[in-house]
Amino acid sequence: MTGAEWLEQAAAWVDPALEAAFPPPDTPPAPLYAAIRYALLGPGKRFRPALVFGAARWLGVPPESMLAPAMAVEMIHAYSLVHDDLPAMDNDDLRRGRPTVHRAFAEDVAILVGDALLTEAFGRLAAHPGPPRGVVRAVARLAEAAGHAGLVGGQMRDLRFSAADGADALEALHRAKTGALISCAAELPAWLLEDDRAVRSLSIYGQAVGLAFQITDDILDVVGDGRVMGKAAGRDARQGKTTYVSLYGVETARRMAVRETERALDAVPGASGDALRAVARFVLERDR
Amino acid sequence: MTGAEWLEQAAAWVDPALEAAFPPPDTPPAPLYAAIRYALLGPGKRFRPALVFGAARWLGVPPESMLAPAMAVEMIHAYSLVHDDLPAMDNDDLRRGRPTVHRAFAEDVAILVGDALLTEAFGRLAAHPGPPRGVVRAVARLAEAAGHAGLVGGQMRDLRFSAADGADALEALHRAKTGALISCAAELPAWLLEDDRAVRSLSIYGQAVGLAFQITDDILDVVGDGRVMGKAAGRDARQGKTTYVSLYGVETARRMAVRETERALDAVPGASGDALRAVARFVLERDR
Repeated sequence: MTGAEWLEQAAAWVDPALEAAFPPPDTPPAPLYAAIRYALLGPGKRFRPALVFGAARWLGVPPESMLAPAMAVEMIHAYSLVHDDLPAMDNDDLRRGRPTVHRAFAEDVAILVGDALLTEAFGRLAAHPGPPRGVVRAVARLAEAAGHAGLVGGQMRDLRFSAADGADALEALHRAKTGALISCAAELPAWLLEDDRAVRSLSIYGQAVGLAFQITDDILDVVGDGRVMGKAAGRDARQGKTTYVSLYGVETARRMAVRETERALDAVPGASGDALRAVARFVLERDR
Repeated sequence: MTGAEWLEQAAAWVDPALEAAFPPPDTPPAPLYAAIRYALLGPGKRFRPALVFGAARWLGVPPESMLAPAMAVEMIHAYSLVHDDLPAMDNDDLRRGRPTVHRAFAEDVAILVGDALLTEAFGRLAAHPGPPRGVVRAVARLAEAAGHAGLVGGQMRDLRFSAADGADALEALHRAKTGALISCAAELPAWLLEDDRAVRSLSIYGQAVGLAFQITDDILDVVGDGRVMGKAAGRDARQGKTTYVSLYGVETARRMAVRETERALDAVPGASGDALRAVARFVLERDR
């Protein structure tokens, strides 16, 4: 199985559940539900659900038994994109080749869509049909990854980052902004099953994949094809952003991504780790 | 005990916990933690924590054992104010007599402060030291009250409300926007203790108090003293807003508030219901 195939499989599992997670788009108050659907069911990679399902497989439980955490991490991811794109934040008009939510609808709608998705992520995770103690720990872990010390803090760092802050600050930024939720996605099945040893392995895997993801993101911005990626290439350089490429150059950055990927592969050994390892390789080799 | 005294008591319990809930204000990334503190520890009434503690008392458990839900509902309330005040939403410069978060800091900071508070509410509730099954149900209930069918949906209704929508739509708006979280605050201790019968009583109490709160809010906008309230009076009329007063007049609106308050008082009988009943009377008689 390739990583791309596992991502497709993950989408086939999670998309119908996401589709059914909110009332139909014409339910009042308009246009809330149409906008939620637009934000949540767009052409994303379903990368974080693929990590949840891959971790389930590694742990020997049916991936479909982990729908709740898969939905939760995709909702958090979707909310973070909607808020990051807002005029007061990154002010982006396009996302994955389509108008951003505040452009397609309105700015107040986009703020509320993000708030609704963030809130519903916790509602869905709390509805996971497993041992309550595991659910409580999973909710706590998701709040940690998504909150002030994770995703939100990372976005704050990103908005105020300057080149003078240096390489350590850049890594702290990315560990918080993208790494925390990616690692959380891989860990959640183990938290839900109260398997502490697996949490540690999946955390190593997730942090390594998260860092590789960010490094390859920076590389793609330089060498990628804007038509494949659904967003303009060369944007970071034009905006004078500090990236792994601007700090280390493409070749060194790629070596760093390879090293992180190897660390990820080593963390989930055995036959049942095949999906997680395929996703880690996908991150390294992706073109979008 | 008066309702005002119980609110003060609630603040004395919850404020130190809120104070300690986030890293010190100068912790990086600036200005996130300073802005969170500004939003969370301002001169609010601590009305929702007072409901949590009052419900704990009615249920015969020490109010201080319900710090986690008290913090959670205050964080949700604080986040909702920060986001509602944003330029794309209600565009308010002042809140409780001070500059709103986006005016005191910046708009991107205000969006992130709201996101951080909303997320941390679930983290804090998940950290409640009680039976895990109760915690899971409390998390689910909080997500319902704060999410698309509650607070967020209510704000969407409010932003798109027109006078032609009528009285039923106005009540649906307020039940979602303010009623859901107020009722949730009163219910949470019963959810945490897995006391289904008490959940039903507290839900009746909470919904009645929530409606009375909104009606008196509308009345205060007409007859209140702007200096006492910390915001300008007469704003609703100037903005042509549909309110309980514009629909029914001050006298009928007040009778409706009295009727809701009586419904609330009846729902929590007995000596241990004194705090909840005092808070319900406070809502009816308040001047701010």
